[in-house]
Amino acid sequence: MSRSYLDHNATAPLRPEARAAMAAAMDVTGNPSSVHAEGRAAKALVERARAEIAEAAGAMAADIVFVSGATEAAALALEGRGLDGAAVEHDAISAWVSDALPVDGEGRVTVAEPARAVLQLANSETGVVQDLPQGLALSDVTQGFGRVPFAFDWAGAEMAILSAHKFGGPKGVGVLILKRGTDLAARIRGGGQEMGRRAGTENVIGIAGMAAAASAAQRDLSDGRWEQVARLRDMLEQAVESAAPDLIFAGRGAARLPNTSCFSAPGWKGETQVMAMDLAGHAISAGSACSSGKVRASRVLTAMGYDDGIAASAIRVSLGLETTEDEVLRFAEAWGSAYRKMRARAA
Amino acid sequence: MSRSYLDHNATAPLRPEARAAMAAAMDVTGNPSSVHAEGRAAKALVERARAEIAEAAGAMAADIVFVSGATEAAALALEGRGLDGAAVEHDAISAWVSDALPVDGEGRVTVAEPARAVLQLANSETGVVQDLPQGLALSDVTQGFGRVPFAFDWAGAEMAILSAHKFGGPKGVGVLILKRGTDLAARIRGGGQEMGRRAGTENVIGIAGMAAAASAAQRDLSDGRWEQVARLRDMLEQAVESAAPDLIFAGRGAARLPNTSCFSAPGWKGETQVMAMDLAGHAISAGSACSSGKVRASRVLTAMGYDDGIAASAIRVSLGLETTEDEVLRFAEAWGSAYRKMRARAA
Repeated sequence: MSRSYLDHNATAPLRPEARAAMAAAMDVTGNPSSVHAEGRAAKALVERARAEIAEAAGAMAADIVFVSGATEAAALALEGRGLDGAAVEHDAISAWVSDALPVDGEGRVTVAEPARAVLQLANSETGVVQDLPQGLALSDVTQGFGRVPFAFDWAGAEMAILSAHKFGGPKGVGVLILKRGTDLAARIRGGGQEMGRRAGTENVIGIAGMAAAASAAQRDLSDGRWEQVARLRDMLEQAVESAAPDLIFAGRGAARLPNTSCFSAPGWKGETQVMAMDLAGHAISAGSACSSGKVRASRVLTAMGYDDGIAASAIRVSLGLETTEDEVLRFAEAWGSAYRKMRARAA
Repeated sequence: MSRSYLDHNATAPLRPEARAAMAAAMDVTGNPSSVHAEGRAAKALVERARAEIAEAAGAMAADIVFVSGATEAAALALEGRGLDGAAVEHDAISAWVSDALPVDGEGRVTVAEPARAVLQLANSETGVVQDLPQGLALSDVTQGFGRVPFAFDWAGAEMAILSAHKFGGPKGVGVLILKRGTDLAARIRGGGQEMGRRAGTENVIGIAGMAAAASAAQRDLSDGRWEQVARLRDMLEQAVESAAPDLIFAGRGAARLPNTSCFSAPGWKGETQVMAMDLAGHAISAGSACSSGKVRASRVLTAMGYDDGIAASAIRVSLGLETTEDEVLRFAEAWGSAYRKMRARAA
């Protein structure tokens, strides 16, 4: 039986459009900084990609700074700025901001002073979508882009962060988007690339893949393809809830991404659930994937007021555009069966 | 007539082995930090690549830190350390070190205190190869790797830097190699990747390409394939010298990379030569490619004692394994012809 990949918030499969763009970029030999024809061709590819990403993200091409991913973008944007965030932010953001902003029981964050605050568009673990106030210092759009509407110019934030591999581009490339006039000191220096804001020869192949994925992601969003995913997610939640009526769904009362479900079966460790489901052929996760396999109580859930027992018993199931009803029903059945066995052992 | 690409020190074409490895890696969906089968497959790919690069670079796999390129590696290794370098180092190194180390007329650097010094293996503009003393704080191996013998463990440096795209891997990926026990604070934080030394989801496709290119580069070096390139480079130098007997060859008296020639035709701007050769179908460069098309007197040549006039009139021709005798002879003919026209105008 084939496996089902239900961990799209950790990383999404490479889109065919990205694959084709990357294969084409492999034939572009030049260094974008070289002035000869080969260099200009590479530069043109990078600049076309920049314009394409800007278009998809509702920004101007000149606002886009290519970096190696969301984590580098966060360091570039946030180091030494002393901004405030909430404890539900991703570790890559939390590394540089406070956790002072209040979080309610559904995961919604209240921002009193947007110009001093950082707020994610959507949470990777719960899928909770925030209502972004105008004038934010930064929004981490990594999990929301391509799944819910977002346009940088309308969002009114000074900066935003995107990561290609969350919407079907390759890993290892992302962008920091900057409002015109925003000043930024390069952290990686020794070259004039990215208008002096990020030195180093551009990841030409990765950038080409990111641009193709961004356009395809926005097209799929416009075409309403995530509505079907939301229907499957709701079907999944009904199925596991009927198998385990005591289940706690985190953030279910808030606006959520169409693809994400986070639920806790108190007393059954998330880690154990992930391993049991892996053996049964389903890839899911407990919390964020980004902590090198370390398992602990979800910081996101404790920030929402859940106790450690509930937070340590949560799993995340995150669907993709290619997820089928059959995959969802098979997962729910496997999970329900494992749940009943766990209950029988505990009794 | 097809163009000839003679700017391999700016960037080399993607090797077929790298292309194949990258295409295969595109099918590996998981996030290397995820614990399920898909995540473990991605992790295994990254770790196999790490071992392959370590083998090619004469290091241990645990010594290798994946980063987005040599420029990031330099920032990670050198920021805040106050080390000394020479003015012939690449801008990405010079951004963080002094230019105090003495350089002789052939581009050779003298190091008095290796533990406080940074020294490149080979210069990108002149190809001059340094005799690395034991105990260096860091060596930038970017231009030398795969073209002249290098093994990290034998070189005896505390750290070394490699960039994939200089030896036929993709742009946007590189490594910092660290001697066991070397401590290093992450600059990009918020995840446990790379044993806490560099956070962020790994560039899986790029890493796969880098590893395949590193193995292929070392195989080609062992097979003696660069000896033929050195023969072509010498043929090139004889041809342009016979056309212009007043030519100055920088670093010709020192050990050099087999593929690099840097020469100055005083009174004829390097920039003008690059444009004339580009129109004639030959991609070459004036100085390093990494300054976004900015043209100025080569800092490397002035460090070697040449005056600004000579330094501003230099070009670099850098060959690759696929360069043919026909390409070299056509270039020399085109350059000689343009040189004679320039002389006639000046007369």
